[in-house]
Amino acid sequence: MSQFPGANAAPDDAEYAVVGAPLDVSTTFQPGTRFGPDRIRRFARTFDDYDRRTNSFFTDHSVHDAGDLHAWDDAGEYLDFLEADLREWHDDDVTPLLVGGEHTVSVAGVRAADPDVFLTVDAHLDLRTEYDGNELSHATATRHALDVADEAVIVGARTGSPEEYERAAETDVTVVPPEDVAEWTPDLDGEVYLSVDIDGADPAFAPGTGTTEPFGLTSREMRDVVRSVAPHCLAFDTVEVNDRDDGQAAALAGKLLREFVFTHAAEPSA
Amino acid sequence: MSQFPGANAAPDDAEYAVVGAPLDVSTTFQPGTRFGPDRIRRFARTFDDYDRRTNSFFTDHSVHDAGDLHAWDDAGEYLDFLEADLREWHDDDVTPLLVGGEHTVSVAGVRAADPDVFLTVDAHLDLRTEYDGNELSHATATRHALDVADEAVIVGARTGSPEEYERAAETDVTVVPPEDVAEWTPDLDGEVYLSVDIDGADPAFAPGTGTTEPFGLTSREMRDVVRSVAPHCLAFDTVEVNDRDDGQAAALAGKLLREFVFTHAAEPSA
Amino acid sequence: MSQFPGANAAPDDAEYAVVGAPLDVSTTFQPGTRFGPDRIRRFARTFDDYDRRTNSFFTDHSVHDAGDLHAWDDAGEYLDFLEADLREWHDDDVTPLLVGGEHTVSVAGVRAADPDVFLTVDAHLDLRTEYDGNELSHATATRHALDVADEAVIVGARTGSPEEYERAAETDVTVVPPEDVAEWTPDLDGEVYLSVDIDGADPAFAPGTGTTEPFGLTSREMRDVVRSVAPHCLAFDTVEVNDRDDGQAAALAGKLLREFVFTHAAEPSA
Amino acid sequence: MSQFPGANAAPDDAEYAVVGAPLDVSTTFQPGTRFGPDRIRRFARTFDDYDRRTNSFFTDHSVHDAGDLHAWDDAGEYLDFLEADLREWHDDDVTPLLVGGEHTVSVAGVRAADPDVFLTVDAHLDLRTEYDGNELSHATATRHALDVADEAVIVGARTGSPEEYERAAETDVTVVPPEDVAEWTPDLDGEVYLSVDIDGADPAFAPGTGTTEPFGLTSREMRDVVRSVAPHCLAFDTVEVNDRDDGQAAALAGKLLREFVFTHAAEPSA
Amino acid sequence: MSQFPGANAAPDDAEYAVVGAPLDVSTTFQPGTRFGPDRIRRFARTFDDYDRRTNSFFTDHSVHDAGDLHAWDDAGEYLDFLEADLREWHDDDVTPLLVGGEHTVSVAGVRAADPDVFLTVDAHLDLRTEYDGNELSHATATRHALDVADEAVIVGARTGSPEEYERAAETDVTVVPPEDVAEWTPDLDGEVYLSVDIDGADPAFAPGTGTTEPFGLTSREMRDVVRSVAPHCLAFDTVEVNDRDDGQAAALAGKLLREFVFTHAAEPSA
Amino acid sequence: MSQFPGANAAPDDAEYAVVGAPLDVSTTFQPGTRFGPDRIRRFARTFDDYDRRTNSFFTDHSVHDAGDLHAWDDAGEYLDFLEADLREWHDDDVTPLLVGGEHTVSVAGVRAADPDVFLTVDAHLDLRTEYDGNELSHATATRHALDVADEAVIVGARTGSPEEYERAAETDVTVVPPEDVAEWTPDLDGEVYLSVDIDGADPAFAPGTGTTEPFGLTSREMRDVVRSVAPHCLAFDTVEVNDRDDGQAAALAGKLLREFVFTHAAEPSA
Repeated sequence: MSQFPGANAAPDDAEYAVVGAPLDVSTTFQPGTRFGPDRIRRFARTFDDYDRRTNSFFTDHSVHDAGDLHAWDDAGEYLDFLEADLREWHDDDVTPLLVGGEHTVSVAGVRAADPDVFLTVDAHLDLRTEYDGNELSHATATRHALDVADEAVIVGARTGSPEEYERAAETDVTVVPPEDVAEWTPDLDGEVYLSVDIDGADPAFAPGTGTTEPFGLTSREMRDVVRSVAPHCLAFDTVEVNDRDDGQAAALAGKLLREFVFTHAAEPSA
Repeated sequence: MSQFPGANAAPDDAEYAVVGAPLDVSTTFQPGTRFGPDRIRRFARTFDDYDRRTNSFFTDHSVHDAGDLHAWDDAGEYLDFLEADLREWHDDDVTPLLVGGEHTVSVAGVRAADPDVFLTVDAHLDLRTEYDGNELSHATATRHALDVADEAVIVGARTGSPEEYERAAETDVTVVPPEDVAEWTPDLDGEVYLSVDIDGADPAFAPGTGTTEPFGLTSREMRDVVRSVAPHCLAFDTVEVNDRDDGQAAALAGKLLREFVFTHAAEPSA
Repeated sequence: MSQFPGANAAPDDAEYAVVGAPLDVSTTFQPGTRFGPDRIRRFARTFDDYDRRTNSFFTDHSVHDAGDLHAWDDAGEYLDFLEADLREWHDDDVTPLLVGGEHTVSVAGVRAADPDVFLTVDAHLDLRTEYDGNELSHATATRHALDVADEAVIVGARTGSPEEYERAAETDVTVVPPEDVAEWTPDLDGEVYLSVDIDGADPAFAPGTGTTEPFGLTSREMRDVVRSVAPHCLAFDTVEVNDRDDGQAAALAGKLLREFVFTHAAEPSA
Repeated sequence: MSQFPGANAAPDDAEYAVVGAPLDVSTTFQPGTRFGPDRIRRFARTFDDYDRRTNSFFTDHSVHDAGDLHAWDDAGEYLDFLEADLREWHDDDVTPLLVGGEHTVSVAGVRAADPDVFLTVDAHLDLRTEYDGNELSHATATRHALDVADEAVIVGARTGSPEEYERAAETDVTVVPPEDVAEWTPDLDGEVYLSVDIDGADPAFAPGTGTTEPFGLTSREMRDVVRSVAPHCLAFDTVEVNDRDDGQAAALAGKLLREFVFTHAAEPSA
Repeated sequence: MSQFPGANAAPDDAEYAVVGAPLDVSTTFQPGTRFGPDRIRRFARTFDDYDRRTNSFFTDHSVHDAGDLHAWDDAGEYLDFLEADLREWHDDDVTPLLVGGEHTVSVAGVRAADPDVFLTVDAHLDLRTEYDGNELSHATATRHALDVADEAVIVGARTGSPEEYERAAETDVTVVPPEDVAEWTPDLDGEVYLSVDIDGADPAFAPGTGTTEPFGLTSREMRDVVRSVAPHCLAFDTVEVNDRDDGQAAALAGKLLREFVFTHAAEPSA
Repeated sequence: MSQFPGANAAPDDAEYAVVGAPLDVSTTFQPGTRFGPDRIRRFARTFDDYDRRTNSFFTDHSVHDAGDLHAWDDAGEYLDFLEADLREWHDDDVTPLLVGGEHTVSVAGVRAADPDVFLTVDAHLDLRTEYDGNELSHATATRHALDVADEAVIVGARTGSPEEYERAAETDVTVVPPEDVAEWTPDLDGEVYLSVDIDGADPAFAPGTGTTEPFGLTSREMRDVVRSVAPHCLAFDTVEVNDRDDGQAAALAGKLLREFVFTHAAEPSA
């Protein structure tokens, strides 16, 4: 039966909870994020339980796989439902590991976790107020996050509208373009929600995503961001993986989820 | 530039209008109907202009390709928009050839054309009042059509809920199961709207669709239905083709659209 | 979480048990049967719970999904392990629904169920004593079944070695070639084990299998065999589906499993 | 090393010679016939050596695989080169089994074999004098064949231009539309060249071809044509298989080549 | 209807003209460049109109999409036809943005634009005088360009014949191997024609091309070349994209075309 | 006919021998290495015969392609068979170029060549004593190699079990993690066997492999390792390529094999 490999903890013993959120409504171009959670679990099957860097086992970190929250058409209602679910985990001091689904699901994650900082790896600013008339489009995720968090950091962003860049110029938003990521060190104030949109990566590393945007991060750059940010986090998500490649996007997303857990568990409240 | 091959007529000279409606919101399983119109046009490139049976050329039937009506998230609003567009064609005595997109788009087609009979080739009854809480799901298409048409004929149907079968048992609905299609002759009263959901075909003939349902029609059975019904029609659509196969579904849909035009033009008001 | 859709019964309440057996060791040509159980569950998601013909719901037939029995390299050991598991179900009067994996897994199924008749839909006779030196190759499945059952019926067979055809000429084996299937009525004596190798179908209907063999059955012919045989059965399996097509093979296999359950439940001990 | 499975005979002992002709220049739509010979050899690996119907082994029919004749851009030159090669086999009383490549290669085959009748299974009439200004397009194959043969029989044809149908109406051409194939019996006068364009099949049975044309033959209908015609033949080809499907087209073509050999060897000069 | 997204200018208002040239005749290995223009337009749909670096909108740069020039078999004739078309744009002071098709189409582009320098990003030297007897093979593109331009710069080249390297050693040719590209600054004398063969990229970044050659450029290196060269250019092309990947090659090519326009428009006659 | 392009030498004249070993038994996740040798030969077709760096032709290096050694189920027996074959080449002073197949085949290669050092590029340590109860799993390759060689160097390794890392900490094993590869220089003592598991590359560069592991080497890093090690080698292999991508893995493996030959031939007994 499909669960995230090694996520064997019972709900009551969990320190982390994998929650699949296969929402796939507003993807502009290539749909398929509904298959993201399944696919990420599947391509994680080949990973060793043991992590050398932290000298620990994934199975020892008390990760529970809560399965998927079946999605439907009404994104607004679904986000409320998802938020309620995630809030329960959060209130029980369980760190949510949300697996999308489109980027919109991060809005529920942020609302449930109530962080000080929303840090996202993303090709897009996602600072729109609406997209195609839709206030809950994937392209508005960071905007909605800023209704909750005090500031947003967008790592790997390389495109957006003038209005988004204007919004990004305000003091509560920091943009780290792809070229600067290798040299970047996070300077974070407070508790962080980390959201990894897989399209932050160059399409070579993650072809299977809804809106590919060349000139992105390498897989190692993605990893180093996760490692440096994880100790400050109270929640994690990875989103926008679909089934339209040969597994590259899903393998990367699953690996980053694991990097988050290994690092976060090793350096709590860093 | 991509247009349906041979659909060269200017809008003012048109007898038929191809209208793409790439709605892809409520697909339950495999998304991608948003790519249906493009793909159907593409796989129609190999077809000869000439049709032997009717001894006529497709380019002589005054087909205009009006392009796609860009779809967005709100199915209700989109259907209104699409209906208005189709109504204009219809009011100008131009026969719409609607190309989906999910089956929901047929609702707009039916409202615009106001037929006496809604005849659909479909694996599913599509007689639900709602699906996953959505009153405009693809699974409700025939139900909505019956708000307009006096009767519905569902050819090739092989699955549904008990409520749908109960509804289908009423006098205004006729179900022709796949096994009976080869021997079936239409007995139609009034003007007909013909809607071809490509999943009426067996998955061997149309793997690229959102909800495959084995034990369906062969391509020749599909064709014979179109040929027998077309002379009674005031509008046509073909829906639920996606890009998840090697072209089988799109080639079949494009061919059926052409069969409709050739037959309809040869036998007007049959 | 992935289970066969509608297979919601608890183990203790089960009348049927889905058991995945992703063995993928001896496939001669195109491997991937290890993904068969996953894929069959996935492509069954679109099927309605309700079945019109039997006027019953799949969820009312007390089907439990016991998940997969993780396979390893040693086919002999694995078959013993699988047999033991299936025997428990069988001894509890639960009808096993074994989902392969390569055809070899049927050997465990037959040993556990101890039928009088082994009836298989298969392109191949599978009557070899060994293949490439391997006594537990998929090409030996029916041979092994005859160590347990009194007779074998091979429906849709169209190829084999002379030795296999010689063996098939003995009185305990009946071969029904594809051309005769449409007119064939089973004449069965005793309890039957029904094994559906998906390569019995023509490759048009099931391209995703290890050894495609043209000139096979249509999907409707496959279905009619299952319907006519199911009432006599004490166990069922479907095998040799892999992930190398666009879902045709998996959708067909999942549908046939359901046809088995609906028919078997409606006509017990026919 | 890749050869047609079982085509083990040395050149000097050969009764049949497989010759690959991966020409892929004039394909109108989906290219890839250059991979046809490779792919047909590959998907033939799963076929048993033994054929039940004729009670013979493929390896006993002295088939030699002469490999591929590397193709280049100039179709005219290539056809001359290919014709010379095939003529050598023909003059040595070896029956050529030409494996395309696009249908144009049949022109070389016909010129080398000099038959009385050119019998082709094909969706298209291929009776054009030129296509896109090209006198050696795949769409002219049968026209060129009629420069050599006295008559042409086109089985499964379902499309063409008016000029082609006019040409087809002359006494030296017979067209058997798909609907008539099941009941058709060949009435052949003289020696026959049999050319199987895989697009004669419905796209369900052979999606991987350059110009798919729905409403075609089933695989069994294709086979029965080959069986009935083979005894009259002095050469065979199968063409227009490409690599754009999951193996259906290649498996079918390889199987038909084998059916030809088994039948031809069993009933020489029938 | 398919046009390059944002290429909305009318012909008369155009500063740039997208011209598709789907020539696909001489590809040695994997064909499909005929689908290049379509695919590049399609995968450009997700790009924002706005470009941050140049603070400008793509739609404000007066780009017209002139559609495709339907290609046929005779490369020589086609190049003449294409050259004439491109020359018209060039003579009207419209910068051509040629979208292949195989690299051969660049020959028409160069002849029409008559540059001083031919600068190409390419894995191959393309300095052959003929290939497989074909003087207009894709492998001769740079050779032909040197009939028009005074010098050639080949960026990212990593393979060729000794004759090509000998030719490349002459003073009018500069080769920048992949390892040197990161540090390279163009030193250009006169007006430049920029030709981007997508196989200049490493196959990780552009798997969908006719002749993949590992050890190539990253997507960012490709981009930086375009940015540094664009201000000196009077024409641009991108070639050799096919449909045999998951969109990586097409997304990269479309993005590079946009980078060209944004940079060229921002720094005219640099 | 399929041979490694340019591997034209007769057996008696060979300096190098390509031996395909399509073993595909123990792959844990995605099978298909049985197609590795075929696929590597196929994607090598586009490479130029000439290598600029070494100023030599591949065809001048006397490479013979000995075809594939047909694999079967029993890995232990197969390795003995393969070892015997490779030993013959080795004893004749012919350098084996083994093409897998799963990594297990390297065990035969090492036994035949009897090196002092086993240097492998690999994502995994492969130092297990068994995997899933299998002592000849691909995950034990380096362990078995150490039964023959005095030391092992594992380049690009990024995962393993604690037991494997413990074993790796002994003095006879050196691990070079991916981050250190760019700066690494080999310090080799004695004769080397070089084994390139394609999963050493990041999945962006080689998606088509059985167990993808992100954060790996770039293609250029892989190449530089081969170049620096080749002069010390008495045998080479490349393994774990399957057919589940668009050619990236196969093209890279074929290129690395060529780099090995060019470098080894240029700097014998360095």
